Amino acid sequence: MAIITLLTDFGTTDEYVGVMKGVILSFNPLATIVDITHHINPQNIIQAAYTLQAAYPFFPKGSVHVAVVDPGVGSDRSILALKKQGHIFLAPNNGVLTLLMQNDTVDELFSIENDAFFLKNDLNTISNTFHGRDIFSPVAAHLSMGLALSKLGPPAETQDVIRASLPQPFINENNNLIGTIIAIDHFGNLITDIDAACLRHFYSCDANNRLEISIGNHKINGLADSYADIAPQTALTLINSRDHLEIAINGGNAAICLSAQKGDHVILSIKSKGELS
Amino acid sequence: MAIITLLTDFGTTDEYVGVMKGVILSFNPLATIVDITHHINPQNIIQAAYTLQAAYPFFPKGSVHVAVVDPGVGSDRSILALKKQGHIFLAPNNGVLTLLMQNDTVDELFSIENDAFFLKNDLNTISNTFHGRDIFSPVAAHLSMGLALSKLGPPAETQDVIRASLPQPFINENNNLIGTIIAIDHFGNLITDIDAACLRHFYSCDANNRLEISIGNHKINGLADSYADIAPQTALTLINSRDHLEIAINGGNAAICLSAQKGDHVILSIKSKGELS
Amino acid sequence: MAIITLLTDFGTTDEYVGVMKGVILSFNPLATIVDITHHINPQNIIQAAYTLQAAYPFFPKGSVHVAVVDPGVGSDRSILALKKQGHIFLAPNNGVLTLLMQNDTVDELFSIENDAFFLKNDLNTISNTFHGRDIFSPVAAHLSMGLALSKLGPPAETQDVIRASLPQPFINENNNLIGTIIAIDHFGNLITDIDAACLRHFYSCDANNRLEISIGNHKINGLADSYADIAPQTALTLINSRDHLEIAINGGNAAICLSAQKGDHVILSIKSKGELS
Repeated sequence: MAIITLLTDFGTTDEYVGVMKGVILSFNPLATIVDITHHINPQNIIQAAYTLQAAYPFFPKGSVHVAVVDPGVGSDRSILALKKQGHIFLAPNNGVLTLLMQNDTVDELFSIENDAFFLKNDLNTISNTFHGRDIFSPVAAHLSMGLALSKLGPPAETQDVIRASLPQPFINENNNLIGTIIAIDHFGNLITDIDAACLRHFYSCDANNRLEISIGNHKINGLADSYADIAPQTALTLINSRDHLEIAINGGNAAICLSAQKGDHVILSIKSKGELS
Repeated sequence: MAIITLLTDFGTTDEYVGVMKGVILSFNPLATIVDITHHINPQNIIQAAYTLQAAYPFFPKGSVHVAVVDPGVGSDRSILALKKQGHIFLAPNNGVLTLLMQNDTVDELFSIENDAFFLKNDLNTISNTFHGRDIFSPVAAHLSMGLALSKLGPPAETQDVIRASLPQPFINENNNLIGTIIAIDHFGNLITDIDAACLRHFYSCDANNRLEISIGNHKINGLADSYADIAPQTALTLINSRDHLEIAINGGNAAICLSAQKGDHVILSIKSKGELS
Repeated sequence: MAIITLLTDFGTTDEYVGVMKGVILSFNPLATIVDITHHINPQNIIQAAYTLQAAYPFFPKGSVHVAVVDPGVGSDRSILALKKQGHIFLAPNNGVLTLLMQNDTVDELFSIENDAFFLKNDLNTISNTFHGRDIFSPVAAHLSMGLALSKLGPPAETQDVIRASLPQPFINENNNLIGTIIAIDHFGNLITDIDAACLRHFYSCDANNRLEISIGNHKINGLADSYADIAPQTALTLINSRDHLEIAINGGNAAICLSAQKGDHVILSIKSKGELS
């Protein structure tokens, strides 16, 4: 089994993704290549970090995950190979790996510098604009065939891995839990940075209390079990498949209906039954 | 051979489709996964039904076709496994299978309930929001490895399969054949619900008669053999690759040029040669 | 190894691409199918020609490249099978192969006419609207299994291959090199028809001279090594991964920022150090 996943901001209109696959297959004709997405907003490192984190656990251990959102391509930013939880990750050292560095435990971490595993052109050089083709793809192919990470270059230290600044839920002076919309999906669902563990810490279901979620001028009472749990075209909150708090509209687009954007806050408060609005 | 096709309304910007593929490959690393489309309009069951019907016959028998357009995910709607004409279909019981139920003949039909074949999380539960990941993908993988449909749950009856209400061509009081635009493709071609058999029933080519097709204020005379059969930028009608009557513009976009939308009627009438407009 | 690449203007919303893959896998279940792109602008033969040229060299020799941008489908335009540099190409004879015909050297060239390798329907006919499904896919599958091109039909002559009229860089009366924007990629980078060899012929780096690139009212001095070589949000010029002169904005979208479009001219001039604007 040799699975290589691709996550980029290259879009699918140009030949760039196809070329990466051609290079991979040139080195490992038996690789199984899976697209996570190529529609990360151009150079949006944080979106790439969240998407990678949401996707990789569902692939078999041993998979090689290639994340190329790389505004610094051709500069002196390094490229990292990370092994963690049986998965291998290749990414520029620019924040894409942030969520994988939580608690700083990694199995292996190397800086990719050994050009013996790069794709070179007739002049024996690599491009300064398309490392996805010239470095990430051939290195991923070699790793998928069992190359040890240690062959790629010198070890790197976890403290040298660049971390993106990500929002974190917090408790405000009114004892409300404040979260942030970190992603809006294809359906317009609003995904927050509040995960299920964080929510349980703040609120446990109780006969006398109930959760109220506010976003802009809209208030939602309680947690739904599923989208269809609530009347059509009604706003609801649930714990989604990423295990995060999500605001949605049953059969509708919450981003449009609630005029919500990435970065907006959501406010969670606990109301006694009498107080509920 | 283990082919699994995917047809969803998930889009390709989020990680959802990649995650489904990761789950499939976790169970069956040798599966060949083919995207039919992930750009069904959100929750558009009828578009999904037409697209599935147009695609599946061109795959090898034994293929497993997974159609996840599923506004009722997490509710008590059932999920069906259907075997017909050597193909296997997995879909929520919400109308996506409508066109496969015509004449009510199926080889096998089961309700998917046996969670031994589901993907469970650390709490041994499945999500209420992403059955594509937690039910459809692992079940498809198992079927692609030869699991009998009967292992998935109890038999279902064909009369319990929910049918979407689809337009049907009809003859009006003036003996015109009235069709409906059921799809507009990427090129802006207008695909109607009139298939070749229906058209032949209404009209057979004759030296003294000719077919006139009206859409809005536009009239088209006769059937073309191909797009290039007619002068550039001219409207034409032909029997398309789905074997349906289609209105197109040679080198242009009929939906834009003719201001046509899904659901619009087309009117077919037979004119004697003298009458032709 | 049996790699088949697909390059079309079919989009990914309809079932068309999935159907092509179903047909290919029906004939060759072991084919590895790679999408180059399906987002060529409808019927844009020149864009297809550039994209094919940019992609194919990165695939293993023996790959079969299928390019279906085919406004003349169903007309008497021929379909060609071309072998060159160890790669096989299938395309309508409408200009898509233009860049592969430079210097007129091909290894093999045949007109695809032998319907023994086509996909036929119940009436033993093929469609006039979807040769991607009925001719290109089954023929590609057969070629990927080792079928000789000569089995497909009679030899064709290179002079019969239709060439699209492509812009060529030229020197104007002021001794400036005039190029044309031939593509705008997903990032808004402006790709010109000036390749590295052409540029070297016009200008060699010199301590006393410097290159000035003009586009519209904007002037850029010198060549950058990479996007990140220049201050953020600043325009730059570099030789890109296609080995062509490209105008970009570090971290931005040059097409938008510079109001540039395909077909616009760029003007290269050599300034002595004193003259530099």
